[in-house]
Amino acid sequence: MPDSDIYMQRAIELARLGGVKTKTNPNVGAVLVHADAIIGEGYHKQYGGSHAEIEALTSVSDDKMHLIADSTMYVTLEPCCIHSKTPPCTDAIIKAGIKKLVVGCRDPHKPMNGQSIDLLRAEGIEVLEAADFKSQCEDLIRPFIAHLQKRPYVILKWAQTLDNYIGKRDQQLWLSNDFSKVKSHTWRSEVDAILVGYNTVVTDDPKLTTRLVNGPNPMRIVLDRDASLNSEYAVCNKEASTLIINGAGREEQLDSIRYHTIGEGDNFVAELLAYLFEEGVCYLMVEGGTKTINKFINAKLWDEARIIKVHKQLRSGIAAPRLGGRRFKCEFMHSDRIDYVYPS
Amino acid sequence: MPDSDIYMQRAIELARLGGVKTKTNPNVGAVLVHADAIIGEGYHKQYGGSHAEIEALTSVSDDKMHLIADSTMYVTLEPCCIHSKTPPCTDAIIKAGIKKLVVGCRDPHKPMNGQSIDLLRAEGIEVLEAADFKSQCEDLIRPFIAHLQKRPYVILKWAQTLDNYIGKRDQQLWLSNDFSKVKSHTWRSEVDAILVGYNTVVTDDPKLTTRLVNGPNPMRIVLDRDASLNSEYAVCNKEASTLIINGAGREEQLDSIRYHTIGEGDNFVAELLAYLFEEGVCYLMVEGGTKTINKFINAKLWDEARIIKVHKQLRSGIAAPRLGGRRFKCEFMHSDRIDYVYPS
Repeated sequence: MPDSDIYMQRAIELARLGGVKTKTNPNVGAVLVHADAIIGEGYHKQYGGSHAEIEALTSVSDDKMHLIADSTMYVTLEPCCIHSKTPPCTDAIIKAGIKKLVVGCRDPHKPMNGQSIDLLRAEGIEVLEAADFKSQCEDLIRPFIAHLQKRPYVILKWAQTLDNYIGKRDQQLWLSNDFSKVKSHTWRSEVDAILVGYNTVVTDDPKLTTRLVNGPNPMRIVLDRDASLNSEYAVCNKEASTLIINGAGREEQLDSIRYHTIGEGDNFVAELLAYLFEEGVCYLMVEGGTKTINKFINAKLWDEARIIKVHKQLRSGIAAPRLGGRRFKCEFMHSDRIDYVYPS
Repeated sequence: MPDSDIYMQRAIELARLGGVKTKTNPNVGAVLVHADAIIGEGYHKQYGGSHAEIEALTSVSDDKMHLIADSTMYVTLEPCCIHSKTPPCTDAIIKAGIKKLVVGCRDPHKPMNGQSIDLLRAEGIEVLEAADFKSQCEDLIRPFIAHLQKRPYVILKWAQTLDNYIGKRDQQLWLSNDFSKVKSHTWRSEVDAILVGYNTVVTDDPKLTTRLVNGPNPMRIVLDRDASLNSEYAVCNKEASTLIINGAGREEQLDSIRYHTIGEGDNFVAELLAYLFEEGVCYLMVEGGTKTINKFINAKLWDEARIIKVHKQLRSGIAAPRLGGRRFKCEFMHSDRIDYVYPS
């Protein structure tokens, strides 16, 4: 385990601390290393806040400022070279006199995409790309990549039995255990919106609010083609705002409920996501049922799936969605198991 | 990430929970999997307690007992086939009717060492060895391997500056920061004995007790060739027992202080460790100084080093020990860094 590895690993660890708070900005971590020791470190803490490189530079204590020019910076993402909400990090790096930079992956955003690396090299700075960490660093910015495509980061979430059912038809059924329920509410507190289909509302009458943990309620979105949803269902209460996506031409705001029309054509999912992006939804969790989730799978417009696998059998019912992909994490919640999957 | 991987990873995660509580027994974890779901899991919790396989089998709930015979067991270490403090696990596995077993690594203990695997295969059980996890599973039993050699697991621990000094000559100097200090006291609470040389006592007058965390005090061991240590030093107080290893023939017990003689010949370290093992020391932490630590390095009798690297320079002083090895973990404690190293 060479030194360069421990510092890039540390930068990745820091980047993760940003979580969903960076919104449409990428999670980035940076570490400043002098003579085999970290003298500064930082990460992008929140949307609009200063970038990881600047956080790392400004974290250096007064008595170590003079060491910066002799330091190596490890950063999970290629620094920015443009003026956005903050000045370009390339300027700050050049100004700090840093002579060596190790970059985890390139910034897919057009103005960068290797151009910052070229720019820094032209300034005489040695820039290394840490190939061993490329895929880990790219995973860090998956939500950012979705946002570059002008759509929310889409998380599919469902619980399924051993024999691959998500429930019984026309019957409310809670599959996952208490630990997984808390986890689900944590996820709710982290997304901007949560989406279900008409059948889920009618069958389960879910509140779709954040209750088992402290945290904000997401916006509730229901796909209700005929705009026929009875306002006595829990999703229509005033605990959170609700968006009813319909194909019936209904466009109005009634208290906390808003109606918006998107025709159920071939591009329905893409149009829906474009609309939600415009409305400021950065993270969308699709909670079901199978018909609704399959719309996203079939459109190939999903970024992550969180599948709670419970140790029960139903023998008949509604089949769970099926998707390919690459499981990147697995968590055991007593008798439940959560598989975290990226599209392959 | 195939299913077999997530279950072996889970078994490893469980095994680690045993920590130092398993004493001379190995850390082992086991998971029982039926139809893609865990129905039982367990680990070796403490010395003399039931083995991981038995813990996993008995953890299965009544309504799932009938599934055991159709399950696969994942276990980090080859099961035992001998009567020790508990009956052989191979018997329990056969009796449970399990038809498939995935083993992380072989048990280096002579009566096993592949023989349990042969025995189970002869019973018609399919036994797979998970090659991808072999080295992780072997790392889990490093203390056990030391104990098979009838000596304590030896942890070398020191703090050093950027320029590789551990201190100034004849002058007390504390290098590591408050976070690392708490960590060091946690380590003290986990070992049976802590060893220093005469010079460390005279220069630093350390208490060598567990204070910054709750936990037992280790036995204090001082290498004092001439048995000349003044009883007014802190290591001689009654807060913990103290063993003074001398070459002066002194053998006596005075209150909490015991004197024992081991001649400083070529086999000094081996003789010392054999003696400590007889005295029930399973985990020994060697805290310094360099001369003392080098005795263990030169004798090649150490199992792990924990090196606290602090961001200071001394420019002169006592050189830190130097050792080769394989860093397997790195932890950042604010400005300090802890490298965890195994011999290579």
